[in-house]
Amino acid sequence: MIQIAILGLGTVGTGVAKVVAENASQIERKLGESLQLKTVLVRHFKDGPYRQLMTDDFSRIEEDDAVRVVVETIGGVEAAYEYTKRALNAGKHVVTANKQLVAEKGCELLALAKKRGVNYLFEASVGGGIPVLHPLTQCMAANRIDEIYGILNGTSNYILTRMVRSGAFFTDALREAQTRGYAEADPTADVDGIDAGRKICILADLAFGRQVDPAEVPMEGIRHLSLRDVRIAQRAGYRIKLLGRAVRLPGSGRTAYVAPHLIPEEHPLANVEDVFNAVVVRGNATGEVMFYGRGAGEMPTASACVADVMECLQASPRREEIGWEPDVQGFEDPRALRSRYYFRIEGSLTDAASAFGQVEVLSEDGETAFLTETLSGREAEERAGSLQVLSRMRVLG
Amino acid sequence: MIQIAILGLGTVGTGVAKVVAENASQIERKLGESLQLKTVLVRHFKDGPYRQLMTDDFSRIEEDDAVRVVVETIGGVEAAYEYTKRALNAGKHVVTANKQLVAEKGCELLALAKKRGVNYLFEASVGGGIPVLHPLTQCMAANRIDEIYGILNGTSNYILTRMVRSGAFFTDALREAQTRGYAEADPTADVDGIDAGRKICILADLAFGRQVDPAEVPMEGIRHLSLRDVRIAQRAGYRIKLLGRAVRLPGSGRTAYVAPHLIPEEHPLANVEDVFNAVVVRGNATGEVMFYGRGAGEMPTASACVADVMECLQASPRREEIGWEPDVQGFEDPRALRSRYYFRIEGSLTDAASAFGQVEVLSEDGETAFLTETLSGREAEERAGSLQVLSRMRVLG
Repeated sequence: MIQIAILGLGTVGTGVAKVVAENASQIERKLGESLQLKTVLVRHFKDGPYRQLMTDDFSRIEEDDAVRVVVETIGGVEAAYEYTKRALNAGKHVVTANKQLVAEKGCELLALAKKRGVNYLFEASVGGGIPVLHPLTQCMAANRIDEIYGILNGTSNYILTRMVRSGAFFTDALREAQTRGYAEADPTADVDGIDAGRKICILADLAFGRQVDPAEVPMEGIRHLSLRDVRIAQRAGYRIKLLGRAVRLPGSGRTAYVAPHLIPEEHPLANVEDVFNAVVVRGNATGEVMFYGRGAGEMPTASACVADVMECLQASPRREEIGWEPDVQGFEDPRALRSRYYFRIEGSLTDAASAFGQVEVLSEDGETAFLTETLSGREAEERAGSLQVLSRMRVLG
Repeated sequence: MIQIAILGLGTVGTGVAKVVAENASQIERKLGESLQLKTVLVRHFKDGPYRQLMTDDFSRIEEDDAVRVVVETIGGVEAAYEYTKRALNAGKHVVTANKQLVAEKGCELLALAKKRGVNYLFEASVGGGIPVLHPLTQCMAANRIDEIYGILNGTSNYILTRMVRSGAFFTDALREAQTRGYAEADPTADVDGIDAGRKICILADLAFGRQVDPAEVPMEGIRHLSLRDVRIAQRAGYRIKLLGRAVRLPGSGRTAYVAPHLIPEEHPLANVEDVFNAVVVRGNATGEVMFYGRGAGEMPTASACVADVMECLQASPRREEIGWEPDVQGFEDPRALRSRYYFRIEGSLTDAASAFGQVEVLSEDGETAFLTETLSGREAEERAGSLQVLSRMRVLG
C-alpha cells in the first residue's frame, strides 16, 4: 500500500481524493499496489468525508515517512513553493496542477527533485485531463520541436464560442460563463491571457529546453475583442480564437506570446468549442500532432494528477527529458514572427492600400477591415503607424 | 554511447536510421548519451548509406552485447516473431511498429520481456507518429477507460475524403491513393478494415487489460461503400468514416469491431481528412480526449520508434500498466451495442416504417434511406429481415 498526502482541498484536491477512491481497482491493477490517501493539509478544518485525515500543520506530512507522494493543489506561488521545496527535501515525490508555480519556479524545483532522487511532475498544469506534457517530452522525444500553439484557456474559449454562436457581446458572454461556473468572480487570469501565458511558458520550457520567463511573454486576452471583428472574421471563413504560441528560432532562440488570432475555418482548432482545449505540437519528424479534450474541471485535472502520482512511483528518477536549463537568454520579441495580419481601421481602402500595398478587403462598412500580405509584427506596426487602427490580429497559418 | 540494431530496411527501418542521424542532438540531450545505429539486418545486401552496417545473419545481433535495443521493422508475424523472442531472450529491449505481431502475440512477448527484465514497446503500431498508447496507459492510468474509437487507417480515410470532396467512386479514389503512394498494390489490409482491426485490438488489450483475439473482431472495410450513401449522408449533415471501436461492457466484458459509420458533421472526427488519423479515448474521469495527426509515413512512424528506444533505456522495467492478461474470455459480439442505424433499402417509406416504426427519412429517390431510433445490432438485423437492404451503417453518438 502506498500512502499520499494532498495539500489543499479545493476543486482539484477534492477531485484527487475522489479519483483515488472511485478508481481504486484500476489504479491498483496498474500500480501493482493500492493507493491510499493518508493526510490532507487544510487551513481551516471543516466537516466532510476527509475530516479524519485533515491537519493544518505541514510538518505532520513532511516528517511522515509513510507519505511517499505529496499532491500540491494549493495554487499560487508562496505557500505552494515553500511546501513543495520542503516535501522534495524530505525525499517525497511532488505532483501538481499549479501552472503559476511551474512556470515561475519549475526549473528550480525540478533540479531540487533530481538532487533528492525524486520526481516533480505537473501534467495537469497544461490541458487539465488532456495528456500533453508526457506525449511532448516522451513520445515526441526523438523530434526537434519547432512550434507549439493551442487553445489553452477554456473560459475564454467558452466566451468566444458564445460570441460566435449567439452574437453575444463579450460582457454578456462573460456573465454567462460566470453563471455556469466556467469563470471566476475575478476573471482576470482567464480573459486577459495570463493563464494561457503560464501554460505556453511551460510548454516552451519543455519543448526548447530553456527557461522562458513569464514576465517577458506578451499576453493579450480577449477583453477588448469586438463583436464586429468576430462577425467580419466569420463571414470571411475564419474563427477568432485565443492562442498561446511558442516558436523555435535559429540558434537557441525562441519566442512565445498569447493573443487572439484569426483561424481558417477548415483548421482543426477552428472547431474546438466551448470549454474544450486543444494543443498542436509540430515536430520535425511527426509533423503536426493535436491533443484535444476538456482542459479543466475537477475530475479531468484530478485524474491527471493521480496518473502523475503513479508515474512517480514507477518511473526511474533519471528522466532527463523532463527538465530544462535556467538560462533565459535567447528569448526574442514575438514581433519578429511573420504572418498575415487582420486590421480594422477607421479609414478607407485607399488608406489601407497606401499603408500596406496589396490587401484583401473583408468589409467596408463605415470602417475598413482587411488582411495584409505576410509580414513581421514589427512591419505590421510600422506600416500601420499612420492609420487609425481599431483592431489588429495575426492570422494563423 | 548506446548502440541499437534495426531489423529490416523498408520505409520504417530507413526512417529510424534517418531520425537517429538527423535528430542526434535532441536525442542526446534527452537521453544523456548519444544513440548509434550499429547493425541493420537485411535479406539482400544493397548499396546505400547503411551498406557497412548490414548483415543477413540475425545471430550477429543476438550475440552482440553492445546492442541494447533492437528495432523490429520487418512486419508480419513469422520472422518478426522469431527474432523478437530471440532478442528479448538475449536481454535486449525490442521496439516495433508491427501491429499484426502485437495484436496477435503482444501479450506473450510482453510477458517474456518482463521475465527478462527488458521492455517491449510499440507506440508506433497505432497512430504512427501520434502519441496514443503511452497517453492511454500512463497519462490516463487513473481512469477506467470505457470506450475508444477512431479513424485508424489513413489510406481508407484518404479514399473516403476523395469520395466526399470530389464525388469520386471508390475504385477511382483507390487508384488515386495508389498513384500517390498512400495505398499499396494489394490494398486489402487497408480498405477491408484489417489494419484498423489490428489497431483497435491493441487499444482494447491495453484499455481493458485482457487479450482481444483479432480473429473474433468483425472487420468491415469500405470496399463496398456506395457513393450514394456518401452523398445522402452528407446532405443530411453526416460524414461517413471508417471507425475502429472498442467498448467496455459490464463485468470483464468487452467488444470491438471495425465498420463504416455515419458521424455528425459537428463531431471532431468528422473533420479528420485525408491521411490523418484521430483516436478518441473516453475515461470515466477525463471524459473524451482526442489524439490527432499523421497516422503513417516514414518519419512520423520512425520518430515514435526512436522515442520508444529512448523510453526503454530510461524506464524502469516494472511498468505494470503496459501489458494485459492472456484470457480472451468475455469478448462479446458487437451486435450487443445499441445505436441509431442508417439504412438504404430497395423499398418504400412504408416498408421502412413497417419494419422499424418511427424513422427519420433522409432520401426517397427510387430507394429509401432513413435513420432508425436507437436499437441493438441484433434488433437492427432482425427487424430488417424482411427488407431488401442495400446498405446499413451505425450512426456515431
